[in-house]
Amino acid sequence: MAQPFRFMLDQDKTFDYGLFIPINLRPHIDCAIPHARAQISGSPVVAIGLASSGQTFFGVNVELPGLPPNYSIHAEQFLVANLALHSERQLKGLAITTNGYYFQAPCGHCRQFLQQIKDMSDTKVVITNRTGQKGTHMPFSTFLIPQGSISPENVPRLLEPSDDSIGFIDQSLNMDICSNSKHCSHLNCRALRAATKSYAPYSQCPSGVALTDRRGKVYSGGYMESVADNPSLGPVQAALVDFVVNGDGQGFKEIVEAVLVEKFCGVLSQEAIARMILGKIADPDCIFRVLHCEYN
Amino acid sequence: MAQPFRFMLDQDKTFDYGLFIPINLRPHIDCAIPHARAQISGSPVVAIGLASSGQTFFGVNVELPGLPPNYSIHAEQFLVANLALHSERQLKGLAITTNGYYFQAPCGHCRQFLQQIKDMSDTKVVITNRTGQKGTHMPFSTFLIPQGSISPENVPRLLEPSDDSIGFIDQSLNMDICSNSKHCSHLNCRALRAATKSYAPYSQCPSGVALTDRRGKVYSGGYMESVADNPSLGPVQAALVDFVVNGDGQGFKEIVEAVLVEKFCGVLSQEAIARMILGKIADPDCIFRVLHCEYN
Ligand SMILES: [Zn+2]
Ligand SMILES: [Zn+2]
Ligand SMILES: [Zn+2]
Ligand SMILES: [Zn+2]
Repeated sequence: MAQPFRFMLDQDKTFDYGLFIPINLRPHIDCAIPHARAQISGSPVVAIGLASSGQTFFGVNVELPGLPPNYSIHAEQFLVANLALHSERQLKGLAITTNGYYFQAPCGHCRQFLQQIKDMSDTKVVITNRTGQKGTHMPFSTFLIPQGSISPENVPRLLEPSDDSIGFIDQSLNMDICSNSKHCSHLNCRALRAATKSYAPYSQCPSGVALTDRRGKVYSGGYMESVADNPSLGPVQAALVDFVVNGDGQGFKEIVEAVLVEKFCGVLSQEAIARMILGKIADPDCIFRVLHCEYN
Repeated sequence: MAQPFRFMLDQDKTFDYGLFIPINLRPHIDCAIPHARAQISGSPVVAIGLASSGQTFFGVNVELPGLPPNYSIHAEQFLVANLALHSERQLKGLAITTNGYYFQAPCGHCRQFLQQIKDMSDTKVVITNRTGQKGTHMPFSTFLIPQGSISPENVPRLLEPSDDSIGFIDQSLNMDICSNSKHCSHLNCRALRAATKSYAPYSQCPSGVALTDRRGKVYSGGYMESVADNPSLGPVQAALVDFVVNGDGQGFKEIVEAVLVEKFCGVLSQEAIARMILGKIADPDCIFRVLHCEYN
């Protein structure tokens, strides 16, 4: 069993390790690696982000057994969902590694996804050669050539705070929602909050998922859309990030109940996918409910 | 109703238009654009590939109504599936445009996917500025920085011919398969052939899908895997490319029967996803069968 890991370092600990360079990050990467869930590929990946708040966050890759690889969560996407959990807004530094020595650039899929965050061009990416020598910082702008790649324009950016207020369509459900639901952990309230914080500037179909484990602890996450469609992170995956970060290393089979809150919009629905993913990875008797919401 | 479009130009027609530059491609792009299925985003995209055989192939973006954007087929992926349909092996030229004037680089997701094809680094990509002036050719290597991006290594490449022979596990099914099934159009035979030609070097879980429309015409396609997991193209999507290319512009609701052939492997299964996608887009009474196969 891997040592517990918080997937973050507060400002003091970030100050302690000093510069955002391989040798300083390595001890923390060693703690993160055992938490990757890479049973299919056998290749753990860790992503480290230096947030604008001065705290450090981690992501690991998560493969979902039984599902095609399209459903995997890349370490970089995990990192972004983890930043969202902590209301972080921007990345000053980014590092991706499989072993703490060789630091590589994000894959094409993640370059596209990360570009959705505000001011990414200046984010410093740690790069080394294969043997871990010759480390350097390169700006993220190096990795997505502006020339004609699809880029987010005229939309709020991923991780920016949203003013959109969302409520349930079915008034009877409002009875089940705390009027001040900011901090409660009812499954409905948490899923609604996740949907409110989700990011769907293209489809305008926000959604969020909340999960409970056998012990009654609740985890949640909101959908994150990419201008290039396919790199979008689904709401179940976002909630699984919370589960991996805060679930004490439990397996996904410990998930016994789930709620999806989504805007009922003709364009798309997360319902069938959420049901399918949970059917594959959660407890076979996992209860799954869907509630529809609307912009207030 | 859009004019019929073959999604390819043979060698003569390719010779006729001359150099692989915007002004020569434009008339053909005008024919391709109405065949994009971009009802959700409202943004049609066309990808044009000059294959090593000297023929020209086209791809359009296809969005699947009701499904999250992760299920979309990018024009570049459509192009690659179209190349596979015609047993093409390599790309000498690539051009991506929304209108025939502005030619842009592939998105991050597609850069990662395209890198799976052999010798892509030298492929010439047509690039212009936004107004369509100042066209140039840039090598594809410009668009995926080798430095540490995940790249395919020590595996056969996408579109390379495969020697793997695949057969059904259930011997009774072999009775239903033509011994010389190279050219027949039985649904089982076509799906098996698509699985045989599919590309799954990482999971070793090949799969293929065959579809029939109301008129009895058969379409098929095989799974295409990416080293970076998520950009992989599922077997249903690959078969939908054949449907768009050869289905005379019919809507997906005309699909009335489908067969998925996949290797029964513990790691992953396409079954639940295939069922879900077809449940959303095909005829509501569409028959869906799954057959398991094994390497011979
Ligand atoms: Zn990635
Ligand atoms: Zn509550
Ligand atoms: Zn693309
Ligand atoms: Zn046959």
